[in-house]
Amino acid sequence: MNITRLAITLFLLSFFSLTCFAKNEENPRLILTIDDAAIIRSGLNESPTFMASFSHLKRKVDATMAAPIDVPIPLHAGGGYTHEQHKRNNNTIYEAGLLYQLTSDRKYFDHARALLLAYADLYPTLGEHPNKKEQSPGRLFWQSLNEAVWLVYSIQGYDAILSSLSDQDRERIEEGLLRPMTNFLSKESPQTFNKIHNHGTWAVAAVGMTGYVLNDLEMVEQSLMGLDKSGDFGFLKQIDKLFSPDGYYTEGPYYQRYALMPFVLFARAIENNEPERKIFEHRNGLLLKAIYATVQLSYNKLFFPINDAIKDKSIETTELVNGISIAYGLTNDPALLDIATLQGRVSISGDGYRLAKGIDDGLIQPFPYRSMHFKDGENGDQGALTIFRSGLEHDHQALVLKNTSQGLGHGHFDRLNWLYFDNGEEIVSDYGAARFLNIESKYGGHYLPENNLYAKQTIAHNTLVVDQQSQYLGKWRLGQKYAPEIVFVEQKASHEATSAIVDSAYDGVVMQRTMALVSHPSLSKSLVLDLLKVSSDSDHQYDLPIHFQGHITNVVADLEASVESRSPLGKANGYQFLWKEAKATPNKKLPQVTWINSGRFYTASFAHSNFSSSENGEMLFTRIGANDPDFNLRSEQAVIQRVSARDHTFLSILETHGEYNPILEYTNESASNVASLVLIEKRSADVVLVELKNGKNIAIAIGKSGAGNHKITVANQSFSWSGWVGVFDY
Amino acid sequence: MNITRLAITLFLLSFFSLTCFAKNEENPRLILTIDDAAIIRSGLNESPTFMASFSHLKRKVDATMAAPIDVPIPLHAGGGYTHEQHKRNNNTIYEAGLLYQLTSDRKYFDHARALLLAYADLYPTLGEHPNKKEQSPGRLFWQSLNEAVWLVYSIQGYDAILSSLSDQDRERIEEGLLRPMTNFLSKESPQTFNKIHNHGTWAVAAVGMTGYVLNDLEMVEQSLMGLDKSGDFGFLKQIDKLFSPDGYYTEGPYYQRYALMPFVLFARAIENNEPERKIFEHRNGLLLKAIYATVQLSYNKLFFPINDAIKDKSIETTELVNGISIAYGLTNDPALLDIATLQGRVSISGDGYRLAKGIDDGLIQPFPYRSMHFKDGENGDQGALTIFRSGLEHDHQALVLKNTSQGLGHGHFDRLNWLYFDNGEEIVSDYGAARFLNIESKYGGHYLPENNLYAKQTIAHNTLVVDQQSQYLGKWRLGQKYAPEIVFVEQKASHEATSAIVDSAYDGVVMQRTMALVSHPSLSKSLVLDLLKVSSDSDHQYDLPIHFQGHITNVVADLEASVESRSPLGKANGYQFLWKEAKATPNKKLPQVTWINSGRFYTASFAHSNFSSSENGEMLFTRIGANDPDFNLRSEQAVIQRVSARDHTFLSILETHGEYNPILEYTNESASNVASLVLIEKRSADVVLVELKNGKNIAIAIGKSGAGNHKITVANQSFSWSGWVGVFDY
Repeated sequence: MNITRLAITLFLLSFFSLTCFAKNEENPRLILTIDDAAIIRSGLNESPTFMASFSHLKRKVDATMAAPIDVPIPLHAGGGYTHEQHKRNNNTIYEAGLLYQLTSDRKYFDHARALLLAYADLYPTLGEHPNKKEQSPGRLFWQSLNEAVWLVYSIQGYDAILSSLSDQDRERIEEGLLRPMTNFLSKESPQTFNKIHNHGTWAVAAVGMTGYVLNDLEMVEQSLMGLDKSGDFGFLKQIDKLFSPDGYYTEGPYYQRYALMPFVLFARAIENNEPERKIFEHRNGLLLKAIYATVQLSYNKLFFPINDAIKDKSIETTELVNGISIAYGLTNDPALLDIATLQGRVSISGDGYRLAKGIDDGLIQPFPYRSMHFKDGENGDQGALTIFRSGLEHDHQALVLKNTSQGLGHGHFDRLNWLYFDNGEEIVSDYGAARFLNIESKYGGHYLPENNLYAKQTIAHNTLVVDQQSQYLGKWRLGQKYAPEIVFVEQKASHEATSAIVDSAYDGVVMQRTMALVSHPSLSKSLVLDLLKVSSDSDHQYDLPIHFQGHITNVVADLEASVESRSPLGKANGYQFLWKEAKATPNKKLPQVTWINSGRFYTASFAHSNFSSSENGEMLFTRIGANDPDFNLRSEQAVIQRVSARDHTFLSILETHGEYNPILEYTNESASNVASLVLIEKRSADVVLVELKNGKNIAIAIGKSGAGNHKITVANQSFSWSGWVGVFDY
Repeated sequence: MNITRLAITLFLLSFFSLTCFAKNEENPRLILTIDDAAIIRSGLNESPTFMASFSHLKRKVDATMAAPIDVPIPLHAGGGYTHEQHKRNNNTIYEAGLLYQLTSDRKYFDHARALLLAYADLYPTLGEHPNKKEQSPGRLFWQSLNEAVWLVYSIQGYDAILSSLSDQDRERIEEGLLRPMTNFLSKESPQTFNKIHNHGTWAVAAVGMTGYVLNDLEMVEQSLMGLDKSGDFGFLKQIDKLFSPDGYYTEGPYYQRYALMPFVLFARAIENNEPERKIFEHRNGLLLKAIYATVQLSYNKLFFPINDAIKDKSIETTELVNGISIAYGLTNDPALLDIATLQGRVSISGDGYRLAKGIDDGLIQPFPYRSMHFKDGENGDQGALTIFRSGLEHDHQALVLKNTSQGLGHGHFDRLNWLYFDNGEEIVSDYGAARFLNIESKYGGHYLPENNLYAKQTIAHNTLVVDQQSQYLGKWRLGQKYAPEIVFVEQKASHEATSAIVDSAYDGVVMQRTMALVSHPSLSKSLVLDLLKVSSDSDHQYDLPIHFQGHITNVVADLEASVESRSPLGKANGYQFLWKEAKATPNKKLPQVTWINSGRFYTASFAHSNFSSSENGEMLFTRIGANDPDFNLRSEQAVIQRVSARDHTFLSILETHGEYNPILEYTNESASNVASLVLIEKRSADVVLVELKNGKNIAIAIGKSGAGNHKITVANQSFSWSGWVGVFDY
C-alpha cells in the first residue's frame, strides 16, 4: 500500500510540474479564472441579473474603501470588534480583488494590496489570541477555524491582484502572511488539519487554495491527502467520510450548509487547476449531491433546525449562493435558477455569470422539492433523515423524521425525533441551538451553557424520554457508536411512511417509531400518524413531548393549571429549564390539544390507551424559562404525555385543519375532525382506526413483517394490501 | 329649532318625491350603479387589475354555487357554524348579484334570488337567537350588529337583481325579509339605531340603504336623522359626533377601520342617490379625512393596536378596500393607488374599476405616510393620538403617543401610553384585545374575560401605574369624562415632540409625559426620549412598564431571577396575570435593557435618578401567564421601573442600533452607544444630557413655558432655542 501511495504521489508531483508551473503567471486561477474574468468584463452589461449583484458588491466595497484601512491588534472574541473587523477585511481583500479583475480600476488593486501588506506586517508579530477559545485557538481570531475561513477569502483576493503585484510585494505578503498562516493551519495545527470534520475542511481548503496560488505542490498534496500525504486524512478522505452516499452531512443541515463552502470552493479550485482529478465525479458525484441535498434539507428557505442549528439560517446564505453557482456551472440545471432567484444574488465568478445569464434568458424551472430519504453515515448504514412532503406549493406539508446517527459533537440526543412544517411555518418544532451567534453580550457569541444543558437533551425534542434521562446518558461519544435501524421506508399514493428502531439509547429499552403522512380524499390536508412502541424488562417513566409553535385554542382533557405559583418540572437533563404550566387528565372524550399558527389550526389527538398503565397517565404542559437567570432561552411550550409502564404504545394523530382569516374575517373548521382514535393490535399488523366527524373513517394498517402481501380482518372488515402500510376506508 | 327641522324635513321629503320615485326602476343604485355596471361590462377586458379581482370573485362564487343552498336555523355564536354560514350567505347574495350585473349570466341571478327567498321564508319564523349576546341580541345572529352587517351586504345583492325579479318575488322578499329586518333594526331596536356608536352606524346604513332600494323615504330619513327624524341621532349626527375634526374615530384605529365601512358605503349610496346632499362635503369633507386617517393609523400594513384591537388587522381589510376605492372615485388621488396595490384587490364597483384603471395606467404615487397629530373628540379638544415617523421606507421608525380620551367601552386605561415601531416590527408593544375572533373554543369568539381583567388594565400598557391600581379605577364611564391636556406638539428638523398632562386618572396625582423622536448626525437612527414627571401630595408606588417584543441580550443592573419558583406580581388590576421573572437593582453603571428583534437591537437606558427615592427603586421583569388556566393570553415580557415616592421623574432613552445579519453572518453595534443619561432641571427648562460612547454628546432642552425664545446655561455651556424643544451638541 505504501508503495502504491508513493507511486501516486510521485505521479502527481510529476504531473504538477507539468501543469501548475507552466501556468505560473496565469492568475487568477482559483474560483474566478483569468478566462472567466475576461468573459465577464466584456459581457457585464449584457446581464441585468449579474449586474445587480456586481453593482451591489461595488457599492459595498466603495463604501468600505471610503474609510481608512483598519487592521487592529486581535483582541475580541466572536462578535467583538476586532473579530468582526478582521472578517470585514477578508471580505474586502476578496471583493476588491474581484472588482480589480472585473473593472481594471487601480483603486481596488491598491486597497487589496494595502490590506494584504498590513496583514503581512501584523501577522508575524502575533501569538495566540488573547481571548482564545478552549480548543484550537487562532492568532487573528479566537479560533483557528476563523483563520482558515479568513484565508479562503483572502487568498482569492491575493490571486486576483497577484499578476499586478511587484516581486517585492509578493515576497512580503507570501513570507509575512501566506506561508506563516498556512504553516500555522497545517503543520502547526495537525489536530485540526488532519481532522475528519468541517474545521479540517476549512483548513485544507485554505491551505490547498493557497498552494495553487503559490504553486506549492506540497501544500496542495497535503491538503488533498493529509499532512503525511497518506490519503488517510485530507480533502479526499473528508469527501469520503463526512458525507453519506446520498450527500447528507452527518452533523445535519445547518453544518452541511457551512461545511459545504470549503468543499465546493476548494473543489472548484481543483477543477480549475487540475480538471484531470475529476474532483466533482469523486465518489459518484458526491459534491453535487451534497449541494442538492442542502437545498432539499430546507422548508420555506430555512434549513431544518436539527442538532446545533441557528434557526434563521436559510438557503440565502453565502455558502449556498456559491454552491448553487458552482453547481449550475457544472450542470446547467435550470431548477437551480429557481433557487438562485430566491437567493436574490449570484456569486461573482464565471459560474455566477453563467447562472445570471440563465436567469436573464428565462430558463428558470421550479426546483423539485420532494420527499427524500437521506441515508446517514459514510456507508449509508447509520440511520437516515427522512423527509415526507405533501404538496408542492410554498405552504406544503413537510414531515421530517430524525432517525440519523449522533452527528458528532454538534449532534443532539434525539433519536426518533420528528418535526412538522406547514403553511410556511414550523409547527412541531426543534429548539435548535442555544446560541446568539456573534452577539458578544450573550456568552461572547459562543454556544451558551444551555446548549449542552438544555438544547441537546432529549426532553428538548419530540421523542421518548425514559426516566427523565437523556439518550446515551447525554454522552455524544457513546451515542456516536450506535445508529437507529431503519425498518422500512415506503412511498405510495395514499401515504409515505417510515419506521425505525433504537435499542441502545437507554439500557434495556427498545423503542420503535412508525410515522406516516397519510392523505385521504375527505381531508384537505394529510394526517401525521405517530405510533411509538416501547418495551423493557422493567418499569420506567416514559415522557413523550410535542413541542408546538402557536397558541393553544382548545384542550380536551381535565386541565389543572399552576396558576398561582410555578416550579420546574425536574432537576436535571434539561427538565430544570421547564416550568410546569399545567397538567391534564384525560376524561371520556378523545384527548386533544389544538393550537393556531398563522391562521391555521393543528390538533394532536391522543389515543386513550396512551394514558393507561399501572398508574394513570397524564399530559403535562410546559414552558421553557426556569433556571434561566440571564434570559438565554426562548419561551416555548410543549405538551408531554407521561406514563409509567414497562411495555407501552403511544398513538397519536396530528391534524392540519381550518382557516382563521383576519382580512376577510371568517373562520372555518377551527375544531378537530377526529372523533376517535384506536389501535387494534393483530399478530401480523397494527391497525389504527381513525373515526372522523365528517362520517368518513380511515383505517391505517402497518404490517409487522416485511413488504409482502397482507390480509387481516378487523371489526368484521377485511383489509388486504401489499407493502408495509395500507390505508383504507372502513 | 323644531320649526327649522320640520322645514328641512319637508324640504327633503319634497325633494325625494321628485328624485327617488322618478328613478323607480333604475337599479342597481346603491354602490354599483346601473351606469357603472354598463361601463364595467363593456370595459372588463381592458383592465387587467380589475379583471384579477373580478376573476377571483367569480371563482369564489362559482365554487360556492357548486354546493346546495344552505340557510340553517340560527344556532351558534360568533365563529360557530350557523353564524359563519349566514355570513357566507350574505356575501354570496351580494357577490352573485354583482356577477349578474357584470356578466348577465342568469345562474347568478337564480342563486341570489333563491337565497333571498329562503331568507324570506326563514326570517318571519325567528325569535331571538338561541345563543344571544347579553346586549342587543339578533335573530339570524347572536347580536343585532351582525344582522345589520348582513343586510348592508344583502341589500346590495337585492339591488343588483331587483330589475329582473318578478313582482311576486319582490313582494315575498320585501315583506318576508327586508321590511321585517329593517323594522327589527330600527323601530324595534331604538337603543341601537339611535346610538352614537359604530353599532348604530351599521344599523342606520343597513336601513338607509334598504330605504333607497325600497323607495321608502321614511326609512332613509330616519337613518339620516334618527327615529324621531330630529337630527339628534342618525347618520349625520354620527358623522358629527363619532369622528374628531381630523377624522380620528374615538375608539381607535381597529374600530375606525370597522366603523368606516357603513359610513363610506352608506355615504356612497347617498351620493349616488342624492348627490345634492353633498354628503362627502359634510363637516369639511370629514369622511374622506377619516379614510386617509385610517391609512395613516397603520405601520407596515397593520393598524396601531391601541384599545380593543385584534392585532392582525391590516389595511388589506375589506372595509378599507371599499374605502380606498370610494375615496379614489371621489378624488383621483394617485397615492391611493399605492395602498390599493398593497391591498392586492379592488372593490367590484364603478369606483373600484376607476381605481384599477389608474393602476393599469401606471399613475401610482407613493402614499405619503407622515407624522400626524390626530386631535380626539367631537370638537378636537379631547386629547390626541400623535404619530411621529422618521424615514419614509418600509422599515421607518414610528413613535405613537396615546394621549387620547377614553374611547368609550372599547377604550383601555392607558392615558399617556406609547408604542414604538421600527424595521417593520412592533418593538414597544400594546397587548391589544384579549380575544380570538370567531374561534368558538375560545369563549365563543367573544372578548375573553381577560380583556377586561388584563388587556384593558393600565399595567398592560406602557404608562404609569399608581399603587397597582388602574387609571380611573378601571371604570370607563368615569374615564370618559376626562381627557389629557396636550401641552404642546412640535415638529422640527432635529426632533418631533409632544407633551401631555393627566391629572384625573388617579386621585391627587398629576403626571406629565414629554416624548420625542430626536435625530442626530452621529446616530443612524433617531432616539426616543421619554420624560415622565409625576407629582402628588402623598407617597405612592409608581410602576412604569415597557412591554418589549424581542429577546433580551443584555441587562446592565444586578439581576436576581426567580429561577426555582415563580409567583404573580400582584393580586388584581391585571397584576395577577404577570409572573415575576426577575428583579434588577441598578449598580454604578447606567441601567440598561437591550433586546434583539428581527436582526436589530434596541436598548432602553434609564437615568439612575429614576430609582432614587425614599426607598431604592428597582426594575421588575415580568411575563404574562399567571392565573391563565385556559392559555388565553400570549406570553409576553415587560420591564417595569418601580419606585415609591411622592414627586418623581422618570427619564429614559430608547436607542435603535446595530444589525445581526444571519445570511451574511455579521453583527454590528450589538451594544448600546449611550454612556450616560442625566436630567438637569432648571427653572425655565429641563435639560437631558445624553453622553454617547462615540464621543458625541447630545443635550435636549425642553422649555417649561411656551414656545417662545429660551436661553439657559448648563455645564458652563449656553443653549438658546426658540420653540418648546432644542437639541444641541455639547
